[in-house]
Amino acid sequence: MDDARLAPVLDRIDADLPEALDRLMTLLRIPSISTDPAHAADCAAAAEWLAADLASLGLDAASRPTPGHPMVVGHTGAESGPHILFYGHYDVQPVDPLDQWKTAPFEPEIQETEHGKVIRGRGASDDKGQLMTFVEACRAWKAVHGTLPARISFFFEGEEESGSPSLIPFMRENAEELTADLAVICDTSMVSPGVPSIASQLRGMLKDEFTVTGPRIDLHSGHYGGPGLNPLREIARIVASFHDADGRVAVEGFYEGVHEVPDEIKRQWNNSGFDEKTYLESVGYTRPHGETGYSTLEQQWARPTLEVNGLWGGYMGPGTKTVIPSQAHCKITCRLVGDMDPDRLRDKIRAHVEARLSPDATVTWDGNLDGAPAAVMNTDRPEFDAARGALTDEWEREAVLVGMGGSIPIAGFFKDILGMDAMLIGFANDDDAIHSPNEKYDVKSFHKGIRSWARVLAALSR
Amino acid sequence: MDDARLAPVLDRIDADLPEALDRLMTLLRIPSISTDPAHAADCAAAAEWLAADLASLGLDAASRPTPGHPMVVGHTGAESGPHILFYGHYDVQPVDPLDQWKTAPFEPEIQETEHGKVIRGRGASDDKGQLMTFVEACRAWKAVHGTLPARISFFFEGEEESGSPSLIPFMRENAEELTADLAVICDTSMVSPGVPSIASQLRGMLKDEFTVTGPRIDLHSGHYGGPGLNPLREIARIVASFHDADGRVAVEGFYEGVHEVPDEIKRQWNNSGFDEKTYLESVGYTRPHGETGYSTLEQQWARPTLEVNGLWGGYMGPGTKTVIPSQAHCKITCRLVGDMDPDRLRDKIRAHVEARLSPDATVTWDGNLDGAPAAVMNTDRPEFDAARGALTDEWEREAVLVGMGGSIPIAGFFKDILGMDAMLIGFANDDDAIHSPNEKYDVKSFHKGIRSWARVLAALSR
Repeated sequence: MDDARLAPVLDRIDADLPEALDRLMTLLRIPSISTDPAHAADCAAAAEWLAADLASLGLDAASRPTPGHPMVVGHTGAESGPHILFYGHYDVQPVDPLDQWKTAPFEPEIQETEHGKVIRGRGASDDKGQLMTFVEACRAWKAVHGTLPARISFFFEGEEESGSPSLIPFMRENAEELTADLAVICDTSMVSPGVPSIASQLRGMLKDEFTVTGPRIDLHSGHYGGPGLNPLREIARIVASFHDADGRVAVEGFYEGVHEVPDEIKRQWNNSGFDEKTYLESVGYTRPHGETGYSTLEQQWARPTLEVNGLWGGYMGPGTKTVIPSQAHCKITCRLVGDMDPDRLRDKIRAHVEARLSPDATVTWDGNLDGAPAAVMNTDRPEFDAARGALTDEWEREAVLVGMGGSIPIAGFFKDILGMDAMLIGFANDDDAIHSPNEKYDVKSFHKGIRSWARVLAALSR
Repeated sequence: MDDARLAPVLDRIDADLPEALDRLMTLLRIPSISTDPAHAADCAAAAEWLAADLASLGLDAASRPTPGHPMVVGHTGAESGPHILFYGHYDVQPVDPLDQWKTAPFEPEIQETEHGKVIRGRGASDDKGQLMTFVEACRAWKAVHGTLPARISFFFEGEEESGSPSLIPFMRENAEELTADLAVICDTSMVSPGVPSIASQLRGMLKDEFTVTGPRIDLHSGHYGGPGLNPLREIARIVASFHDADGRVAVEGFYEGVHEVPDEIKRQWNNSGFDEKTYLESVGYTRPHGETGYSTLEQQWARPTLEVNGLWGGYMGPGTKTVIPSQAHCKITCRLVGDMDPDRLRDKIRAHVEARLSPDATVTWDGNLDGAPAAVMNTDRPEFDAARGALTDEWEREAVLVGMGGSIPIAGFFKDILGMDAMLIGFANDDDAIHSPNEKYDVKSFHKGIRSWARVLAALSR
């Protein structure tokens, strides 16, 4: 692909990389953990920083209040060409367990590793590093040409890691302003290092949390040990009942709306360069542990899950406490595929738990009830071919359409609320440890990500 | 039973009750939590206070150092009569969950309740309130007669709630000094309110703790949800496998050394005044939840248990974290009966867990390995009949020999190390919430407990 406008933009990106990294580090130093109310001011600070950065590009941009954390919205002026809405999120995951971090999570560093330079810190990959690839591409384009090659709107939220409670109301209230020809999202990873990837399907999400109560008060395990109902044993039995011996979810009706992957898609995935052995071994696995009969990629992209994210009760401190606790707690999330309905599924899971309680045990449900179905992209749109070509040029490796194991409900919301298709391109790697201690983003992902967006913008504007 | 020396002692006890309560409150204000290293100085302070209090009775008493928390040892002078070693413990359980306490755990209060006055605070019953009943009986005897009716040694430890690591070495090093004709222990409860009880058998104890590791690091449940092995699901499955559907422990060989209760003993227990319905309903149960086919008292006194006291892993904070954690943790204790061998049992439990791990999951054992077998008292000794008579006089209800669900390894140690039998008499009630928030001790237990010991001392000295 040849575009005389592009070469000086790419040169500018290369020359400006140190400054671009400095800007990212500044954003990473803001501990914008959205799920923890103690960090509300930090979320607001991150939004203000982004709004100011967009304004410095000449955009009309502002941090706009919501009942939760602010949204950042910015628009270019009268640029011609297609209208793109770029979405990212400035909030980050909590950092616990803090003692497993080798550097302070909000004091980011550039580190040399055996696989090249990385940016280390919470949010480096998810999603501050990724969203800044697009911002930096725009900055370079503007610096070289004084304008952008398309009409671009920016839309950053600060609640992606905490269920996006303000997102849908905000989109409804500002529907006209936010509707563009296509939404572009940078919050996904490459199927394997160096293989540019466009997501064609995303799993949905359901969250819930429950508490099992046994005795009215904590009991002494000598006095009541024997006749006493122990909620830790109850909750363990319930959690163990969620799956059968083949790794299949045993909740009745769980797989309603799940479709098998067509053979043609399976073939594409098998040729995507995905290195199953390295993927599993990098975290200590010798084999996939999901449903028997499905490959690792199918288990991760095309099969639903019921996962336990937290389980606790009783005495967790040093030493021993001979207690039968009154309560035990469990947090779960499900990843949804195909036509699975989050609301119906929640009812099925709750019924499964309630049917398995012992007499004298009770359950209460504490979860916030948001959920989002799976999303399948409209890959027939010409922008997908244009972007694939641009990515292939930058990475010198054919770009592929892939599934994604994660949930990015925003893609479904853009379609449902604004009638707008979305295209997801991201440069994260599987070893980025997002949501984990020691999160990182490869400097190569950041640098070639910026270059990729410059090329994609050129391609979309042609 | 008539004893001219006794009546003025009982009168003195009645008159001195307010001061005796004040002394107990002072001791309760010391947060001597032995399992938490942060409270080591508090444990030392409690030991010093007790040593000073014994010295004020004219005893030769001191707080004596150990590698852990101090022991308090005191001796009367040349008193004639039998030599009694009185044992109690000044350390207390941790106080979590703190938010369930209605008063500060270490700011004790006398409260009026519908069942009479209670002393509210951590340790009020277990064991500061109980041990002070014996001290106060001695104080009254000394005040009235200038001497005690028997030769008495005191032995208080500060590690009873944390596995007593220093106890056996200390007993071995001071065997001659600590050996008496009989050990007397006040750390048990009455089988039902107002029914004086002497423990004839105690369950033993085994403690262990394990960690299951799945992935090398915490994982994102989108990226790895499906192929990812989740240690929370592993540990839930393992905990669920500990018991079968009849409430029986499913660890192979677990019941080796367990004997059925003779019919004659069962008959005694059935006539002990134990009110099963109230006992269960007071904590929210409508039925016993232990092994099918055994009564509540059998499940609690004569059957072994494998109990989960703590279970945790993953995200436990507010909101959601879509994590597959690297590790999950479990604390267990077993109550042992009959001839169960703690060391062999530990091996069986560990083998049970290890045999059930999935590929790629590993287990590490973190427990301190102390354990104590069950103890059966030598109730043929004449002191048991003497004490039963004294207790029957005070409570105007026939004193009974009962089992105990709890574990007081000291009784077995006195026998094994010092060759000394023990007699356990206590005045706690089942609703004292020991090891739980809002622990209390009835003022009636305290007052009549002191009077009971005055009578028992008189009877033993005859």
